[in-house]
Amino acid sequence: MTGIDHSADRGERAFVRRLAELLGSGPPGAAAPFGDDMAGVPGSGRLLWSTDMLLDGVDFLSEKHPWRTIGRKAMAVNLSDCAAMGARPLAALCAVTAGPGLTVDDLMDLHAGAQEIGLANECPIVGGDTNEWGNPTAIAITVLALADEDVPPVLRNGAQPGDALWVSGPLGGSILGRHLWFEPRVPLGRTIAAQLRPHAMMDISDGLVIDLARMLEASGCTGAELDEALMSAAIHADARQLSADDGKPPIEHALYDGEDFELLIALPPDASAAVCSSLGLIHIGRILEQPRREAPAPSAKPKTPSILLAQARGGIRPLEIRGWEYLR
Amino acid sequence: MTGIDHSADRGERAFVRRLAELLGSGPPGAAAPFGDDMAGVPGSGRLLWSTDMLLDGVDFLSEKHPWRTIGRKAMAVNLSDCAAMGARPLAALCAVTAGPGLTVDDLMDLHAGAQEIGLANECPIVGGDTNEWGNPTAIAITVLALADEDVPPVLRNGAQPGDALWVSGPLGGSILGRHLWFEPRVPLGRTIAAQLRPHAMMDISDGLVIDLARMLEASGCTGAELDEALMSAAIHADARQLSADDGKPPIEHALYDGEDFELLIALPPDASAAVCSSLGLIHIGRILEQPRREAPAPSAKPKTPSILLAQARGGIRPLEIRGWEYLR
Repeated sequence: MTGIDHSADRGERAFVRRLAELLGSGPPGAAAPFGDDMAGVPGSGRLLWSTDMLLDGVDFLSEKHPWRTIGRKAMAVNLSDCAAMGARPLAALCAVTAGPGLTVDDLMDLHAGAQEIGLANECPIVGGDTNEWGNPTAIAITVLALADEDVPPVLRNGAQPGDALWVSGPLGGSILGRHLWFEPRVPLGRTIAAQLRPHAMMDISDGLVIDLARMLEASGCTGAELDEALMSAAIHADARQLSADDGKPPIEHALYDGEDFELLIALPPDASAAVCSSLGLIHIGRILEQPRREAPAPSAKPKTPSILLAQARGGIRPLEIRGWEYLR
Repeated sequence: MTGIDHSADRGERAFVRRLAELLGSGPPGAAAPFGDDMAGVPGSGRLLWSTDMLLDGVDFLSEKHPWRTIGRKAMAVNLSDCAAMGARPLAALCAVTAGPGLTVDDLMDLHAGAQEIGLANECPIVGGDTNEWGNPTAIAITVLALADEDVPPVLRNGAQPGDALWVSGPLGGSILGRHLWFEPRVPLGRTIAAQLRPHAMMDISDGLVIDLARMLEASGCTGAELDEALMSAAIHADARQLSADDGKPPIEHALYDGEDFELLIALPPDASAAVCSSLGLIHIGRILEQPRREAPAPSAKPKTPSILLAQARGGIRPLEIRGWEYLR
């Protein structure tokens, strides 16, 4: 967890901009532009796919975590991307490079854990690649998904000023275990897409504030306001438990901890609160009514949006935009 | 390069059998069964996909090879899988975990090299995942392809006794440079599939003999005979150059060296030699006329096929089945 380096042309945002310049802003006829939770397939309006590499010592600890659990997580992070698009998973490929000491039994456990959560979401592993080397184990699962015929995939770049912000569940403290063992919101994501027609949706993988900033940037929105009173319903018990140990206010964990894998949803302000509540969604704030800028080209250098916290005791606190970011 | 361990229930073949048991023999309605060069997508008769992980120190040497060349290879090995199915590539995802010292410029070079050979084969990179860690760089590219409407994908499990064996180009000595910089046979693979309707096809990645053994096993065939006189046209100049240094007969390099990425093709015996020659294919032998066994279930333990060399000076030499194999 580190701050974004705003001072230099480095960091993840700078890299992604350069990559977008190199690769182009997205294939024609694809269901999603470059930089969303899943990528589109050119010429195929409804097919989506994504890949995630998980690393021993970074995303899991093989000394501590069972391989079945590790395999489950490697599949679940990809299923969470499907959930974020409101799409139906179709199948997965599982590529593994085994580190020293990983036995064939461990490899089977890894695949069994991935297959288990995959099948629970109708997403069987149908192929892959297995290698070995003298370094820690790396796992790359790729998932293919299909948007429902009458429900276009929900992108992260469609949020609008005035939209209400909701999350699919309480946040923070995932390090106590949920970071490894979470339920990807696949059926819920599809229901939200079909019933609520969100303007934007993404999964919260690096922390609420930084992921919200990414949604605002992608959508060309200048800012959002989170409501501390509403947020109290979005603080996970794990965040409160962690606070008891580290003395930080629980809301800090809800705002900044990574690997929640809940959904962040931008809904038109007139969306049915009754439907939202029936789906277990939690209202946390809104996108500010400032004049909307044109959505920037993927290669354009975006302005950092402002994210404010309307405090329960009154007053507004600007939130520092930070969270997990690679290539600092 | 090591021998297969026939004595214990270990090794790649044993692992793949156990994996097939775990995952099932292939999704219903998919274009290819488990274990082929590409996997099928359930419910989608023509979609194929594959993933390959390439590792610093194993598949490339970042101290020696430029990142642009490394990125090119990471894409090309996947395009070679498309060629092996006779399928048309659609798009790719590129996941990279950067090792220490890999700069953003290096990452851009890697993506540029992959994109270049991708676009040359109408296979743009449309998304991916980038991470970093303290270990060597790992690259996992996934490619999606579509079989032509009236040309079913060519599997490796359809070879029949009496089939003629052909290769798409000369073999051996790839370590002199072609292992890193080769032309995936994408257009040729599609032409072969459409014009010659092969019984089986695969790319030669681990060596002619071991890959031929895999084709025979998958097809339930008991053996094949390579013809030394014919093979002389299938020995690459690099194999001869290597022989001048290491004293091994050039044909040994053609038979056993890995990473040729040429196509191995089993054609009905009445296939047009004129068409084959016009496509630059080289005739190397035939599948033996022994009674064909039933093709085994993917989970069944296959018998090792016999591969013979009909020597130019007369006499038959049984060839040891060895080549690159992981999980020894």
